[in-house]
Amino acid sequence: MRLFTVGPVACYPEVLKEMKQQMFSHRSQEYKKLHAETVELLQNFLETKNEVFLFSSTGSGFMEASVRNCVNKKMLCCICGSFGKRFADVATSNGKQIETIEPPLGEPITPDLLDQKLMKNPDIEAVSITHNETSVGLMNPLEELAAIAKEHGKLLFVDAVSSMGGTEIIVDKWDLDVCFSSSQKCFGVPPGLGVGSVSEEALKKSETIKNKGWYFDFKIWEKYQKQKGTPMTSVIPQIAGLNRILKMIEEKGGKKWFFNLYAERNQQIREGVEKLGLTLFPKSGYESPTVTCVNAPANIDGLEIYEKMRKKGFELAKGYGSIKNATFRIGNMGYIEFEDIHSMLEALGTVLVDLGWKR
Amino acid sequence: MRLFTVGPVACYPEVLKEMKQQMFSHRSQEYKKLHAETVELLQNFLETKNEVFLFSSTGSGFMEASVRNCVNKKMLCCICGSFGKRFADVATSNGKQIETIEPPLGEPITPDLLDQKLMKNPDIEAVSITHNETSVGLMNPLEELAAIAKEHGKLLFVDAVSSMGGTEIIVDKWDLDVCFSSSQKCFGVPPGLGVGSVSEEALKKSETIKNKGWYFDFKIWEKYQKQKGTPMTSVIPQIAGLNRILKMIEEKGGKKWFFNLYAERNQQIREGVEKLGLTLFPKSGYESPTVTCVNAPANIDGLEIYEKMRKKGFELAKGYGSIKNATFRIGNMGYIEFEDIHSMLEALGTVLVDLGWKR
Repeated sequence: MRLFTVGPVACYPEVLKEMKQQMFSHRSQEYKKLHAETVELLQNFLETKNEVFLFSSTGSGFMEASVRNCVNKKMLCCICGSFGKRFADVATSNGKQIETIEPPLGEPITPDLLDQKLMKNPDIEAVSITHNETSVGLMNPLEELAAIAKEHGKLLFVDAVSSMGGTEIIVDKWDLDVCFSSSQKCFGVPPGLGVGSVSEEALKKSETIKNKGWYFDFKIWEKYQKQKGTPMTSVIPQIAGLNRILKMIEEKGGKKWFFNLYAERNQQIREGVEKLGLTLFPKSGYESPTVTCVNAPANIDGLEIYEKMRKKGFELAKGYGSIKNATFRIGNMGYIEFEDIHSMLEALGTVLVDLGWKR
Repeated sequence: MRLFTVGPVACYPEVLKEMKQQMFSHRSQEYKKLHAETVELLQNFLETKNEVFLFSSTGSGFMEASVRNCVNKKMLCCICGSFGKRFADVATSNGKQIETIEPPLGEPITPDLLDQKLMKNPDIEAVSITHNETSVGLMNPLEELAAIAKEHGKLLFVDAVSSMGGTEIIVDKWDLDVCFSSSQKCFGVPPGLGVGSVSEEALKKSETIKNKGWYFDFKIWEKYQKQKGTPMTSVIPQIAGLNRILKMIEEKGGKKWFFNLYAERNQQIREGVEKLGLTLFPKSGYESPTVTCVNAPANIDGLEIYEKMRKKGFELAKGYGSIKNATFRIGNMGYIEFEDIHSMLEALGTVLVDLGWKR
């Protein structure tokens, strides 16, 4: 099965080789070296001096952490799809009040929308933004949105789960307070590891918050970080895998090389589906560089396209949430060869004809 | 390096083979099969009809979950060492009031102590017990303690992190409400996965609690369990590894065979260190079946023994917490060959002589 999933994605062979290594203690010298090195590689990748934590959880753990450490009462959740919605759910389930911005599905958060909302609601402490909304294949203009949030003096939480590693994010320059991702997306590492940068300001806010819990308390993480470790046992295989891919990226020419590779794949997929006569779901100009969300043709169920593609040996991704049946998605993260993109597009053409589609 | 750690422990070769497999979607048919099968294997292993969740966290995630889902105001924490203390920290950091029972280090929680405490404090909602306190190599009499807690009508949380898989636990018969462990201990799987059973009563209590958060909400986990999945991305490699070892145990003769194997190793280690003239830290009769906590001889630092053993190719475990220097620990979980036990004991004898120890 060739994977065009949106995560877990196919992993690079070099990464899978790391996954099978024998374990060692997470308090040993060997681990401390791996930990410190991986943190530094990530700091370089994100161009940040902020702490970068290696969470023994998925990226969603950072949603819980942001809300619990940095919001006393009220935050703003920007919602462009299921994962923006998840951030809002995490906030309310932790007893926080929320305001929301929720444009029609397929449309981005604009700087204007954000500016207006923040002007009207001065009691908002923090803003959450989904950089790349995996569920609808849409990318928000993060740099501009961050500028607005910071103008208003708000803390900014960025869900970069399906963008970190796939497109540029400059944490210090853009002034992002919490910016997190998961191992199983652009980095092409198996799931189980969340990574995220946390600013001085976020850590300071955390000191003022009560009942934060233990597992995701940034201040406890900061304490263990000084000892080159994690509060609970570290997810060693995935950290070793991430370490490997980050070094591979450096060896091959750095992050620009990696972003270009993903952009090239993304463009080929987009051109391919458009050549077949299909259209993309998100508003033009905001298409994701890592997930192509394709409108299923009228009268054809997106799930059926997904199932038929599986039978041909290609695992795409189902539509998600309310557009589950109206769309299907094609990821371009992880280990994918260009020749597989061509055969996938060919198979997609055949599947559409089989399903009786006439352009 | 041969590992006699207390976790992460050395993994079985068959498990490491699973770790390197290519990824697939956690919403695919392949994953649903793996998920359902692994849950059933664990239910059989623990002899329970309760839900068994596969947490995308370490075992400590279940501490956070127990406290947040099942305690409204006040709980009792039984403390025999660092991990009992962690449970108490988790409770207070989540804003719960605690009572504690904390016998002198090396002594167990007795049914009498528990009974008296619960009689005096009728407002306690739940009791946490560390089955096997890894930090001091002590095992509490869980079955008897559970009977007392349930007589008083309390919910019971069992930290079985270093006992599940290494000694008998019968969840339904003993009436344990939450009973959890981690992948990287007795099961000999890399870290990153928490597993635990959750009773009907615990799930019912969860319905009444506010601001539980999202990541560890038992009710959300229950909902996704029905779809053979997890709320966030599943830790697929570790789940596949656990699936493999549980099947291996079944093939080789079932859990009694596995417990006997661990007991045999444990006995050889204990006899070996006693033959060298060393004594064990915990009170006689309560020694752990998975971790041997050894008193360092007078005037010799336990950390030095640990370091010198490393140089000979054996990774033991350092002492932990307040007895860091006074003890060292030898784990017998995971992938260990009997011949390695003999050479480890031989090396230990040499190291002690090198350190100038005279019996």
